[in-house]
Amino acid sequence: MRVFWVVCGIAAALMASTVITSTAKAQDPLPSWRDDAPKKAIQSFVASVTRDGSPDYVAPADRIAVFDNDGTLWSEKPYYNQLAFALDRVKALSSEHPDWKTKEPFASILRGDTESLLSGDEKEIVGRLLDIIRATHAGMTEIAFNQIVLGWIENARHPETKRLYTQMVYQPMLELLAYLRANDFKTFIVSGGGVDFMRAWAEKVYGIPPEQIVGSRNKLKFELRGGRPSIFRLADVEFIDDKEGKPVGIMQHIGRRPIAAFGNSDGDLQMLQWTCLGRPLQTLCLYVHHTDDEREWAYDRDSAVGKLDRGLVAAKVNGWLLVDMKTQWKQVFPTP
Amino acid sequence: MRVFWVVCGIAAALMASTVITSTAKAQDPLPSWRDDAPKKAIQSFVASVTRDGSPDYVAPADRIAVFDNDGTLWSEKPYYNQLAFALDRVKALSSEHPDWKTKEPFASILRGDTESLLSGDEKEIVGRLLDIIRATHAGMTEIAFNQIVLGWIENARHPETKRLYTQMVYQPMLELLAYLRANDFKTFIVSGGGVDFMRAWAEKVYGIPPEQIVGSRNKLKFELRGGRPSIFRLADVEFIDDKEGKPVGIMQHIGRRPIAAFGNSDGDLQMLQWTCLGRPLQTLCLYVHHTDDEREWAYDRDSAVGKLDRGLVAAKVNGWLLVDMKTQWKQVFPTP
Repeated sequence: MRVFWVVCGIAAALMASTVITSTAKAQDPLPSWRDDAPKKAIQSFVASVTRDGSPDYVAPADRIAVFDNDGTLWSEKPYYNQLAFALDRVKALSSEHPDWKTKEPFASILRGDTESLLSGDEKEIVGRLLDIIRATHAGMTEIAFNQIVLGWIENARHPETKRLYTQMVYQPMLELLAYLRANDFKTFIVSGGGVDFMRAWAEKVYGIPPEQIVGSRNKLKFELRGGRPSIFRLADVEFIDDKEGKPVGIMQHIGRRPIAAFGNSDGDLQMLQWTCLGRPLQTLCLYVHHTDDEREWAYDRDSAVGKLDRGLVAAKVNGWLLVDMKTQWKQVFPTP
Repeated sequence: MRVFWVVCGIAAALMASTVITSTAKAQDPLPSWRDDAPKKAIQSFVASVTRDGSPDYVAPADRIAVFDNDGTLWSEKPYYNQLAFALDRVKALSSEHPDWKTKEPFASILRGDTESLLSGDEKEIVGRLLDIIRATHAGMTEIAFNQIVLGWIENARHPETKRLYTQMVYQPMLELLAYLRANDFKTFIVSGGGVDFMRAWAEKVYGIPPEQIVGSRNKLKFELRGGRPSIFRLADVEFIDDKEGKPVGIMQHIGRRPIAAFGNSDGDLQMLQWTCLGRPLQTLCLYVHHTDDEREWAYDRDSAVGKLDRGLVAAKVNGWLLVDMKTQWKQVFPTP
């Protein structure tokens, strides 16, 4: 009997090994990435932190990877997709707010003038966006808001490409998320966007569950009415998960330092600093550089949305990866 | 060759099945629970939400279980273990604060009078505890605080039992955590305790990683000094994860409604309401009732720490499980 099992075992082992090697050869985990510096650096990083006995080995529990969303996982031009959602909400709610016809920033929105929303300095822009968020993202329960977002994301289309917003995610980044998870990384979104806006659809689109999404937050209030509990969304924006807020959001929510961080703008700089600077272990920081004005958009230093200026300098100084979207991504969006 | 594989397959299948059935018979997932109503209810709940094709089936991603910590996963008498940590910190820091000798609540602590800390109404008690937290849980980096907590939890002993605090966790609850995880539940702590205090040791003790711990929070600040990033703990207590704060903390952090919640005090009431009231699906809510003055402590309505009054009524009205620690737990603490 023992001999019989040994024979089975050896035969099985032989079969398995052939299967493994052949599939390993066959499958490129990052097919939309050109065989170029960033792809090679990503793969050697993953190999060195996952290889048992490697001096850079990191236990699976500590393989935390954080991703910005707007401009890193999906497009953010001509303006943030969540702003497109908010503008549609302003139009839908305008009949209940006759005063909006003469009150900025709502009057401009109702006139169809979105450009003025993003004019002026950053402080002015953020102020306008917060006014719009307060007016459109509050005054209902969490469950109701979730339904509103789902109804929008399943039907709304991008003003220029006319594609569903969920079809304007980056194919190379979807591959990167899957590749990291296949190597026992836990993938998180850490975005300036509204956490509940993203949670409504991100699990389906990115495979990232609600509890692994960190974002900006409205204040919430628990109420029990007639034996039915609910969570109401209040107008105060309680936390803005951007710039210095990103490492704070990471420590509040995740409670440990990531070993890999991915962004595309100066709003991600502190998250990349927190992940990659002054540490004794191997880390990976990567900036997606929007250089492709044919397949997507080309912008950096002078853009009101997704400005990348200090980050470009930091990437050079610290040796972070800078992905040239135009030359280093074979494909930008998923094939419909 | 084909016949050879079939033979191997059948033999392997036979072996496997015997192994499975025998272990299934052999293993009781909740050996420290008496074969009584709560244990049976827990097991039938888990069976009904995990059985494929069951009308109550819940997908693994939605199997969220939330646990209070103090009094639910470990002891909280004669006062919260985190308060014992804070008192030790006050003593350790007193030389740097000569004014504490005459300033309350520090003067009482330095005199060894802890009872007065928990006298008066709840508002007075909370006020004192917040003063102590501000003085002992801030003014250092997150990393430094983590090291301070670890140094304490590995050596400090309970004032009455003289056991390590990590040996005063409840064996039946450790079994329950493991049993739920074995059934693809994701287990979270949702506690009024300080999130960073718990995160320092909870993964090792409960198998719950930092990112699955929700608690009260100090304000944090990101700084980059000489190219080295750090997160500083500020004195403001930014969020108190208790009572109405618990469902809010759940929605901020987890972003979906749990289907199972476990607590022991009125501070957990809203978390249990949010989990179990007004929903069309099967849920489980359980209160641990401290009735064992021999093996642990007996307290409920009149206790300053872990008061259970409104919760007792709610458990009765809503048919939540109430565990009589004295009669329904065979063992309270792990065998040393």
